[in-house]
Amino acid sequence: MHILLPRWLIAIEPRGVLLDHALVIDAERIVDLLPAADALARYPEATLTRLPDHALLPGLINLHAHSAMTLLRGYADDLPLMTWLNQHIWPAEGKHVSDEFVFDGTLLAIAEMIAGGTTCANDMYFHHAAVTRAALSSDFRIMVGCSILEFPNAYAANADGYIRRALECMDEFRGENLVGFTLAPHAPYTVSDETFRRVITLADELQIGIHCHIHETQDEIATSLKEFGVRPLARLSGLGLLGSHLIAAHMVHTTDEELALLARQGVHVAHNPASNLKLASGFARIADQLAAGINVGIGTDGAASNNKLDMFAELRLAALLAKGASGNPEALPAWQALEMATLNGARALGWDDRIGSLRPGKQADVIAVDLSAVGTQPCYDPLSHLVYAADRSQVSHVWIAGRNVYADHRHLSLNLAETQARARRWHSRILSV
Amino acid sequence: MHILLPRWLIAIEPRGVLLDHALVIDAERIVDLLPAADALARYPEATLTRLPDHALLPGLINLHAHSAMTLLRGYADDLPLMTWLNQHIWPAEGKHVSDEFVFDGTLLAIAEMIAGGTTCANDMYFHHAAVTRAALSSDFRIMVGCSILEFPNAYAANADGYIRRALECMDEFRGENLVGFTLAPHAPYTVSDETFRRVITLADELQIGIHCHIHETQDEIATSLKEFGVRPLARLSGLGLLGSHLIAAHMVHTTDEELALLARQGVHVAHNPASNLKLASGFARIADQLAAGINVGIGTDGAASNNKLDMFAELRLAALLAKGASGNPEALPAWQALEMATLNGARALGWDDRIGSLRPGKQADVIAVDLSAVGTQPCYDPLSHLVYAADRSQVSHVWIAGRNVYADHRHLSLNLAETQARARRWHSRILSV
Repeated sequence: MHILLPRWLIAIEPRGVLLDHALVIDAERIVDLLPAADALARYPEATLTRLPDHALLPGLINLHAHSAMTLLRGYADDLPLMTWLNQHIWPAEGKHVSDEFVFDGTLLAIAEMIAGGTTCANDMYFHHAAVTRAALSSDFRIMVGCSILEFPNAYAANADGYIRRALECMDEFRGENLVGFTLAPHAPYTVSDETFRRVITLADELQIGIHCHIHETQDEIATSLKEFGVRPLARLSGLGLLGSHLIAAHMVHTTDEELALLARQGVHVAHNPASNLKLASGFARIADQLAAGINVGIGTDGAASNNKLDMFAELRLAALLAKGASGNPEALPAWQALEMATLNGARALGWDDRIGSLRPGKQADVIAVDLSAVGTQPCYDPLSHLVYAADRSQVSHVWIAGRNVYADHRHLSLNLAETQARARRWHSRILSV
Repeated sequence: MHILLPRWLIAIEPRGVLLDHALVIDAERIVDLLPAADALARYPEATLTRLPDHALLPGLINLHAHSAMTLLRGYADDLPLMTWLNQHIWPAEGKHVSDEFVFDGTLLAIAEMIAGGTTCANDMYFHHAAVTRAALSSDFRIMVGCSILEFPNAYAANADGYIRRALECMDEFRGENLVGFTLAPHAPYTVSDETFRRVITLADELQIGIHCHIHETQDEIATSLKEFGVRPLARLSGLGLLGSHLIAAHMVHTTDEELALLARQGVHVAHNPASNLKLASGFARIADQLAAGINVGIGTDGAASNNKLDMFAELRLAALLAKGASGNPEALPAWQALEMATLNGARALGWDDRIGSLRPGKQADVIAVDLSAVGTQPCYDPLSHLVYAADRSQVSHVWIAGRNVYADHRHLSLNLAETQARARRWHSRILSV
């Protein structure tokens, strides 16, 4: 048993800030949340971690990531989406992406995410077994999105091939506590109706989620109107894709009718504010999505289009941008931004029974943020500071499923120097071709 | 003599990245910038600082700050500008702002800014002597904006009083290398025509700049139309305020004609992207401002409306937001964002002969950023990483006028523990009233 004694305890459920409270962890689970004095009396044998200047909160959930793309961080910038994909990212991926690339790149991403207080990522990439092994090797929680497209790469020849490899990977890692899988048809403009139908059937049979880029750009919508006569969401709705098993990444462009449809169908949205700005994709109507009752989480997107996997930067940007885009300075207050980056992410993954808040019974995915730094002094309201003022570098401790993977700003579940050395080797290889 | 040997040298003038180059500092000035081998041969007696994983660049210039407001960081959030000012910030300021408050708050801001690579701030607040003393005590470069309003506070009874105190302060600190002064009429909605006329005359006599909030919100424009029959910029233009001595903070709302007018008159703009989003003031047309030939720098605004004085966060947000707001992913590329946060800031202050780039002859205001951190690996392009990926916590060394004020992430020109202890005392005082 282990007792954490923070200055501020932010459980997300219930809302608000608890003072003089303790969180009690037994093995991989949270077993109690109670006044500090009661905890010391009730669990006299437990070990203690005092966090006198810290806020304790659930680990952040990165709801849309292409983790392995850290190896292409800053490889091409300041370009439109399709130029960036067609002339830079896809050619580089075509040449280099392999099991080894994906393992090394995912591990680099995990090292960055853990150090920044992220304990779970909803990934979407290729070489799923390599993604899974990187997460298991570092005790990181991951939802592995198995990418499916029509066109070939080194991983598979066509949609059938991608699906087959996805199913093999799910078989291989069945029953791992830290790992889940989704089918991830890439986007309406890269996946056929027939493939979407197969994905829907399979996801239903396997009782797993679906993760797809939807309505990222105006261009995507214009293309669909030309090719299918309808907007992508209408096409996907007609195919039967919408439902509470679906995480729609981006969802930047939406009519009021589409917001109502998404809410009615229980579709989850992964909002990626930095990537949407960087690629000039548009302003997602987050205040309207939340008002419509849609469950919205927050993601970083890949490091090639952000270029950091920093959920603190991302949730701050989400809170700021929702105000700017809606013209309402009261939109998306601090507490709600934190909820999006934790509990809403868990809900989207179908994992709100196990993570996303510090409720007894849930897995102990917990982070401590030291608010004694100069940039978070003085402190009138820790919720405000976590959203508007704190840097990820103030994350001091991270636990995932009760395991302390980061303490006093040092990694305990991975070899950081070796992880960075591997990244530097890829840098040389990619530049030399 | 002192030689700095970074991995990447980013001088801003000329543009681009220099490899295997050295910067040579003698007392307070940069005296040479040359290939590393030549530097070692030419200055054999100089001391050496090797920065093998670092980018070396000019210190960042925060072009719009209310430094002392760090003491109200997070005091009130998620509110509209006028509610926030009238019901929260101005009452708290009315109760607490004093020489001591301003000295302590400014020093806290300086500690935060130096640690984040900011070497100069264009401040605007009251109790100007306290602002100046805080900067001098910590070897920080500051342009002290002497606030002028019509209404009374503890510092002065009316516009005359504010102006008198400004003049006294300028007399007191005449000739200080690190300090300059501007007259800072608060905003069109708080300053009368008569006072603006006096400010213009005085600034001209004293050959100093003017710093004013202009076109921050639509509300400001609507009020002016009602009261004066013209938009604020037209009124100020009629009074003769516009010119290259003027720094217009915010300038969010602009017609094409206004952009042309600002460019023609050589007015400098201080863009504050985080504050403009947080208060939902609108999207400044930065891509258009730059295209019109306006000199645009970047500021944080005060910590009460941001809530961090993090120029790395701010320049990243400026680069991202310019793309999102213009719909053009090629707008404001990384190199240009860095130029805005350095040389453009210096130009706006009339100090581009002394700071803003690493040109020999200029004052040695220099920062080193360690790019070996996990979030900036691998590194294809240090300019991209400085803008899109780096955290301010990667700033390892800071020199101001040749003095090393920060080394290996530790302050050398101020007592951080004491500065934070004073901030905590203010926190208790403010909460107890």
